[in-house]
Amino acid sequence: MRLVTFKYAEKLGVHLGALREDGAVLDLAAADPALQGGNMPAFIAGGTAALEHARSAMAKAPVAQGAALCAPIPRPPKNVFCVGKNYHEHAKEFAGSGFDGGAKDVVPPFPVVFSKPHTSIIAPGEKILSALDPTGGLDYEGELAVVIGRRGRGIGKAEAMQHVFGYTIVNDVTARHLQKRHSQWVLGKGLDTFCPMGPAILTADAVPDPKALRLTAHVNGEKRQDALVADLIFDIPALIEAISAGITLEPGDVIATGTPVGVGIGFTPPRFLKAGDVVRIEVTGIGVLENPVA
Amino acid sequence: MRLVTFKYAEKLGVHLGALREDGAVLDLAAADPALQGGNMPAFIAGGTAALEHARSAMAKAPVAQGAALCAPIPRPPKNVFCVGKNYHEHAKEFAGSGFDGGAKDVVPPFPVVFSKPHTSIIAPGEKILSALDPTGGLDYEGELAVVIGRRGRGIGKAEAMQHVFGYTIVNDVTARHLQKRHSQWVLGKGLDTFCPMGPAILTADAVPDPKALRLTAHVNGEKRQDALVADLIFDIPALIEAISAGITLEPGDVIATGTPVGVGIGFTPPRFLKAGDVVRIEVTGIGVLENPVA
Repeated sequence: MRLVTFKYAEKLGVHLGALREDGAVLDLAAADPALQGGNMPAFIAGGTAALEHARSAMAKAPVAQGAALCAPIPRPPKNVFCVGKNYHEHAKEFAGSGFDGGAKDVVPPFPVVFSKPHTSIIAPGEKILSALDPTGGLDYEGELAVVIGRRGRGIGKAEAMQHVFGYTIVNDVTARHLQKRHSQWVLGKGLDTFCPMGPAILTADAVPDPKALRLTAHVNGEKRQDALVADLIFDIPALIEAISAGITLEPGDVIATGTPVGVGIGFTPPRFLKAGDVVRIEVTGIGVLENPVA
Repeated sequence: MRLVTFKYAEKLGVHLGALREDGAVLDLAAADPALQGGNMPAFIAGGTAALEHARSAMAKAPVAQGAALCAPIPRPPKNVFCVGKNYHEHAKEFAGSGFDGGAKDVVPPFPVVFSKPHTSIIAPGEKILSALDPTGGLDYEGELAVVIGRRGRGIGKAEAMQHVFGYTIVNDVTARHLQKRHSQWVLGKGLDTFCPMGPAILTADAVPDPKALRLTAHVNGEKRQDALVADLIFDIPALIEAISAGITLEPGDVIATGTPVGVGIGFTPPRFLKAGDVVRIEVTGIGVLENPVA
């Protein structure tokens, strides 16, 4: 099942929906009053019972005419967790670019985790504002993101996948000069519109093996990234174990797992984004996250 | 006015209160129904009108018998923004300690900003859980924190102080080995219980000049930190300008401004915290934030 958050044009409020194979949005809340509220983290916290409601509602839910997709989780409980340098070839291109200010190791011995506030999250199709990076170093990073389903701290690798609700796509947009300049990455990566997310959350039951998922990223139709999730340095159980070792993860928390090789600074000279560009990220089964740069 | 969030023992729900000179908590919501809800960011978003309600309520508000203080903002809109290496003498002691993994500069040329999730925030008196740092590198950092009052992006230094609602105290508790190991600081600083906050928000009208505020930190009664906010490398207007350049700040967002010299790793050998220790941080006019280590 692909779950979405959507709104009706010119109306207030957001709703829980499902994305049908043909791209139509089904209004689940219209089919089942128990699914009203449009708060995805609250829905996820409802666990198996809520999921069963959604599954039953799909059969009878009307198509939401004129629906516009929002980010599936416009407001996670915490800032989005993001992982840096988590694919071998990307770690090399980043180290070689000169933009990795402080690092001594090409491949990090422990996960490198930073965060992006909810104010950076935008919907599929929304504009990435290049003007917010006055230094002209705008870059894309296509990433698979994990959505947490069950609350927990001290989650071991062996049980980690039981805490996964599903998967979505994040574009970890980055202002490279600001990332380097500020040393810690919130100010280079957490800017408004710098976290496109969506189009949907593919529920975990539909993903028997996340390692088999394939991620591609295109800029203006030119392929830039193409990788299997199997190539992650720290895989999903390892990331959940590392983050939850000291931090309680909650339903609706999002962990963007890192980007593969092929970002703009991997080229010589770097190929930064500019107004008018379109970034399109696709992951098997989840769908397409496409955003224009303005 | 010193505003607090509190709860009644053995009752659910939190309330808006004021801390009287003698330490008594006044139940503002009991005196004025407009102040119910106990959601400090929502109250702050109410602006001048909400503040006037609180001021009027103070005169007639009953003392909240058996009140227990919560953190004044248990759940800010975003992770708490924190600033690293923002006092000259502390930047030196941190550089000299060997724990500043990546940095090339002793004094950062641009603000170093990271974040702590709401799950790390605890109340005055609550326990800091040393067990969450299995590497034995627990450290304290007393800090003045700014509470944002007015929403904005691209806030210039000249107008920055108009966006400040008030001031509170944060202990930026840190697991030093984890901070170094993970390179980016969320996993070394964002752990559960690692963000004691309080006791109150001193409203901006009571602080004609925040530079004159004095911060002290004691561990088990021994003075470890003693500094004036005037010694900040990047002062409050500079921090608000730097963060809001790309990130929309919202009512209730919290910016911890950095810690002065005197943390545990400033000693040779380092003096890390252990179970049974008590950390007490005080800032002129705001009050005392004291937390035991368990």
